[in-house]
Amino acid sequence: MATPAPRTAASETGDPLLLTPGPLTTAKSVKEVMVHDWGSRDATFLRINREVLEGLPKVVNGEGDYVTVPMQGSGTFAVEAMLTTFVPPKGKCLVLINGAYGHRAKKILDIAGRKTVVYETAEDTPPDLAKVEAILKRTPSITHVFAVHCETTSGILNPVHEIGELAQRYGKTYLVDSMSAFGALPLDVRRAHVAAVAASSNKCIEGVPGLGFVVARKADLAATEGNATTLVLDLHDQWRNFEKTGQYRFTPPIHVIVSFHQALTEFWAEGGQPGRGGRYAANCRTLVEGMRALGFETLLPDDLQAPIIVTFHMPTDRRFVFQSFYDKLKDRGFVIYPGKLTVADSFRIGCIGRLNTDHMNQALDAVREVLAELGVASASPKKAA
Amino acid sequence: MATPAPRTAASETGDPLLLTPGPLTTAKSVKEVMVHDWGSRDATFLRINREVLEGLPKVVNGEGDYVTVPMQGSGTFAVEAMLTTFVPPKGKCLVLINGAYGHRAKKILDIAGRKTVVYETAEDTPPDLAKVEAILKRTPSITHVFAVHCETTSGILNPVHEIGELAQRYGKTYLVDSMSAFGALPLDVRRAHVAAVAASSNKCIEGVPGLGFVVARKADLAATEGNATTLVLDLHDQWRNFEKTGQYRFTPPIHVIVSFHQALTEFWAEGGQPGRGGRYAANCRTLVEGMRALGFETLLPDDLQAPIIVTFHMPTDRRFVFQSFYDKLKDRGFVIYPGKLTVADSFRIGCIGRLNTDHMNQALDAVREVLAELGVASASPKKAA
Repeated sequence: MATPAPRTAASETGDPLLLTPGPLTTAKSVKEVMVHDWGSRDATFLRINREVLEGLPKVVNGEGDYVTVPMQGSGTFAVEAMLTTFVPPKGKCLVLINGAYGHRAKKILDIAGRKTVVYETAEDTPPDLAKVEAILKRTPSITHVFAVHCETTSGILNPVHEIGELAQRYGKTYLVDSMSAFGALPLDVRRAHVAAVAASSNKCIEGVPGLGFVVARKADLAATEGNATTLVLDLHDQWRNFEKTGQYRFTPPIHVIVSFHQALTEFWAEGGQPGRGGRYAANCRTLVEGMRALGFETLLPDDLQAPIIVTFHMPTDRRFVFQSFYDKLKDRGFVIYPGKLTVADSFRIGCIGRLNTDHMNQALDAVREVLAELGVASASPKKAA
Repeated sequence: MATPAPRTAASETGDPLLLTPGPLTTAKSVKEVMVHDWGSRDATFLRINREVLEGLPKVVNGEGDYVTVPMQGSGTFAVEAMLTTFVPPKGKCLVLINGAYGHRAKKILDIAGRKTVVYETAEDTPPDLAKVEAILKRTPSITHVFAVHCETTSGILNPVHEIGELAQRYGKTYLVDSMSAFGALPLDVRRAHVAAVAASSNKCIEGVPGLGFVVARKADLAATEGNATTLVLDLHDQWRNFEKTGQYRFTPPIHVIVSFHQALTEFWAEGGQPGRGGRYAANCRTLVEGMRALGFETLLPDDLQAPIIVTFHMPTDRRFVFQSFYDKLKDRGFVIYPGKLTVADSFRIGCIGRLNTDHMNQALDAVREVLAELGVASASPKKAA
């Protein structure tokens, strides 16, 4: 770029741009609708809520057979609600792990006293489908299969459709954590034979945080009565209550839901998943090409990289001090994210939220400036010869 | 009043006034701070959150010995987190019930597989302290006592300090649901020997809904490790995480928390609990006197009535159709609340939220107008002679 980089990034509300896995930068219009009050039995709010619940299955081709059950709290509240509502006391769940969110699901099931079988691969490696099949074949006691769509630990894309076909072939109920992918990456719950998929308001639909949700196949949800280990996380009970009264059992985060409704309206205006995913893919390409041009290397090969968040190896140049790099980027209006990997020293930059390629180019300009200021000659993770 | 009543109530944002137990009418200033984005590791957000957590124990004289553990979700999420974190698998909890929230606590404990002893009184009757003592004396296996501060089912004030002294005398751990009272009614956690008290962002502190919290005595909280039946509702785990990192384990509802911070600032500016409670008491007096002047009768005698929400007997005049009464009040900008009682046919009007005596007088004017429009001659619940 010939023009000098702006000193600070320009979000619509003057806040730093969040290049993270969430909470994300959201549109000003999505936040402005929160400057009102509604009663939880108010007809306007109930219509808004109903439109949110009815809209979400359409994002994943679930219209008709699937319903949305919202869950107050964060995405993990929705995942715990899904696992503890769907896996019965005598169930056994195959948990596919290649990062922190797979481990978290295993922990949730352990606390709930549900049996698990774990198949873990490295953080940069998707599960081997032949091995998944072998496990399902040799362990008929498995009742459920759990997978993470995009593991934000690394940013890796897991083969959720292929895993679902195996689950279907062996008669297992399939549960998916699509937290950071829902709305951005293609997911066809019918083709993938998904019984339930969990996500939240504050990822690729670009609402504010405070609401998780589970899109569940009615036939499977109907079979979960009495499984839950708590009152508040019981998806079956909340679903039945909606059927009866159209209302939440417990005070909903009304402002968050109204904001989520606005975010969904803007999501459809952008062309739904293909439009939203297309913008993120362009962000990701711009970011990865620009960072590689500066010498950085990605953890993942391009075919495993989801356009959600990118893990970069830490440069080995000793003048590259991550905290300084982070702080100087923040001073310029860009918030990035530390690494969480066990396989490599790394940091992460997100591509999702109210960001476009102009923002990504501004971020790259800022990275270039900061490297120069730090005196880093090469951002390569390879040791100098 | 000599001046004609306004046709519609005036909230700062043009929304109907919520005369309900919550969600409530909040200040415009409390909502406007949400039109920004923050990262969950952002220093500004972490400072705001710390100030919220440090401020809440001061509301109930818990400074020093007590900490706040926030819980994403609604107030019931905080209550379930409190009960399942504090009552261990081998515990037994005396549950004092005189309304829906006592029943809900019992249900939570049942689902968690915790033993209970129930002492239930009618919805218009506080527990008899001599009977509470007799139960504690004859049942040494009881480990915990649970009480509801203000039961919004009826609006009754329960003797939480006196119950706490009994719990202390018999060596029981005392847990309080102060959802609709926290910040408005006096609660001295030291004098009442409270181990933990649950409340939420959207009651008398006048924030928006989306965050529950538990103010817990550190010594008691420290003893709860391993009790929880879930990952997300484990208060001990969240507390330890704050001690280690100052951060939430799972994405917090950032906008709700920033708004809650603003609400707390305005709470202290109003004089804390005495100031806030004083305004609500004036609202309640205005409401009750005005409604009685129109012929309505309260369920509770004045000495049992908390200045939070007032239950009125349904008039017996057959021209009084509740749905019409409700709708016509809503058309005028006042949202009231249906009854939930088993002992009497009733409806409720709340006194809390961003309301003052002018608002209550406007509401009374609207009630008068609506009665005239419906042709109701007497709002008395007594059968005409």
